Amino acid sequence: MNISIPPAPWQVQQWLNTPEPITLAGLRGRVVLVIAFQMLCPGCVSRGLPQALRAHSLFADSDLAVIGLHTVFEHHEAQGSRAALAAFLHEYRIGFPVGIDAPSAYGGLPQTMQAYNMQGTPTTLLIDRKGQLRLQHFGHLEDMELGAAIGRLLEQGTQG
Amino acid sequence: MNISIPPAPWQVQQWLNTPEPITLAGLRGRVVLVIAFQMLCPGCVSRGLPQALRAHSLFADSDLAVIGLHTVFEHHEAQGSRAALAAFLHEYRIGFPVGIDAPSAYGGLPQTMQAYNMQGTPTTLLIDRKGQLRLQHFGHLEDMELGAAIGRLLEQGTQG
Amino acid sequence: MNISIPPAPWQVQQWLNTPEPITLAGLRGRVVLVIAFQMLCPGCVSRGLPQALRAHSLFADSDLAVIGLHTVFEHHEAQGSRAALAAFLHEYRIGFPVGIDAPSAYGGLPQTMQAYNMQGTPTTLLIDRKGQLRLQHFGHLEDMELGAAIGRLLEQGTQG
Amino acid sequence: MNISIPPAPWQVQQWLNTPEPITLAGLRGRVVLVIAFQMLCPGCVSRGLPQALRAHSLFADSDLAVIGLHTVFEHHEAQGSRAALAAFLHEYRIGFPVGIDAPSAYGGLPQTMQAYNMQGTPTTLLIDRKGQLRLQHFGHLEDMELGAAIGRLLEQGTQG
Repeated sequence: MNISIPPAPWQVQQWLNTPEPITLAGLRGRVVLVIAFQMLCPGCVSRGLPQALRAHSLFADSDLAVIGLHTVFEHHEAQGSRAALAAFLHEYRIGFPVGIDAPSAYGGLPQTMQAYNMQGTPTTLLIDRKGQLRLQHFGHLEDMELGAAIGRLLEQGTQG
Repeated sequence: MNISIPPAPWQVQQWLNTPEPITLAGLRGRVVLVIAFQMLCPGCVSRGLPQALRAHSLFADSDLAVIGLHTVFEHHEAQGSRAALAAFLHEYRIGFPVGIDAPSAYGGLPQTMQAYNMQGTPTTLLIDRKGQLRLQHFGHLEDMELGAAIGRLLEQGTQG
Repeated sequence: MNISIPPAPWQVQQWLNTPEPITLAGLRGRVVLVIAFQMLCPGCVSRGLPQALRAHSLFADSDLAVIGLHTVFEHHEAQGSRAALAAFLHEYRIGFPVGIDAPSAYGGLPQTMQAYNMQGTPTTLLIDRKGQLRLQHFGHLEDMELGAAIGRLLEQGTQG
Repeated sequence: MNISIPPAPWQVQQWLNTPEPITLAGLRGRVVLVIAFQMLCPGCVSRGLPQALRAHSLFADSDLAVIGLHTVFEHHEAQGSRAALAAFLHEYRIGFPVGIDAPSAYGGLPQTMQAYNMQGTPTTLLIDRKGQLRLQHFGHLEDMELGAAIGRLLEQGTQG
């Protein structure tokens, strides 16, 4: 893991797959995996989201929360609506909560994407049980590396 | 190959990636690979379209024409617009011509999809040099099998 | 396909998976796929042999003959015995006939490998129904390309 | 991880890729990944050993030791010699230490394989920093799961 800093707050316009909005404060005590994606991003569809689904399944009985963040910064007409995203989540059987990153008032990158200075999609975040951002990675992480990082953070939470 | 019948005409609302509409008559003399897909169909995105792109590249110097047909039968609000499809083709670097199957006046399956009695997406069609429909397959075909079918049809055209 | 020449005769020390030795003359009228391999060649094990098995299965009802040629040019102590090869064929469930290329009297490349001027393993050969060598390829061929080449040669045999 | 017991001692006939024999006692303080394999076991070659190589590379700067154990229980004539194994390790670029499990005096399973009651190959073992056997798995483990188990054990060692 490459950092240990307080994460910027999430600016989410709407949530799907969850009855209640999700907040960083509400996740305190759990390890959090965030996958920032766009539904028309090939690397997200072929690698990032399938990996997040594997993590969601593998760690189902642990304290890992898996959260999607739809950070639309291009093709707004095609992927900017809640309906388009809902259809996508349905077809790809993505059952974990997904927030729609709030668009910027000035166009360009949406607000959370900007606050984290993300370089594109997919971007993976890991937040530890104490609420610190411990990893931020643009592009693909190998499964073994992501698994090891999650394993370390889960273990930290259970000790001293 | 499992059939040899005249193909139903294509009912295409709009074409992308081509300056002129494409017709079965205009393709006579060439072998034609058609991939019927939806942009939010996971099997199309992960297997059918990458395969069509491989065929497009492998047979670039031959008489094979590769054509996409966007047969939207669900999630119209998400994938029914030309803009959504154009964004998708751009992101997935699909450069071959793609026609938007004409919606039915009564809802349900679009017109070409109905005329071919397609069961879903992806569906692969192969048309021979004489304009006969020789193969129609719903789901995935292995690359070797599709290659063999194309090879046979290309060879037929150069003899007798 | 890149050539059309008479193939050099095969110099085979022993055959496995066949009651009778196999000869080029005996294969006349059929299309022949030859995979030259070594049991300790990673590219053969991971790609070349699985591909030959796919071809063997896909074209089981056609006139394609699939033949292996064990062209040992290194690690003779590990892969040079019939027993080692037999164990390998058993474990990898390779049921098509495999000939052991005859060692050279002077060491170095075995005789058939030399006669074909093969550059290493895996090497793929295709022979047409008239007994002409039509393709020789060192390294991996994509499934679609090999399928197309086989399809063309199978088709040629049924015309003219 | 499914267990926490003292591991049986290793009965190794010879070691490759290491100047000195390796012992459980000498590894105390490190996390140890053991891959028990046979060079003619397809599941070992296609999945288990590539995974061990990925772990060896990914955790190169950590306290993980990766060890191979050649547990030959069949095809002794083909894979039972040091020369055969050395050729295999060379071709597959396996650079971590590999021990040859000592054959049983009575035939059948080699001694270490017996002592661990392994059901076949590949079998994966994980030993923690305190020298306890924490995981034993026959067949394939997904990369994310193995990564998580290694990450947890590496983390345990640095706390308390």
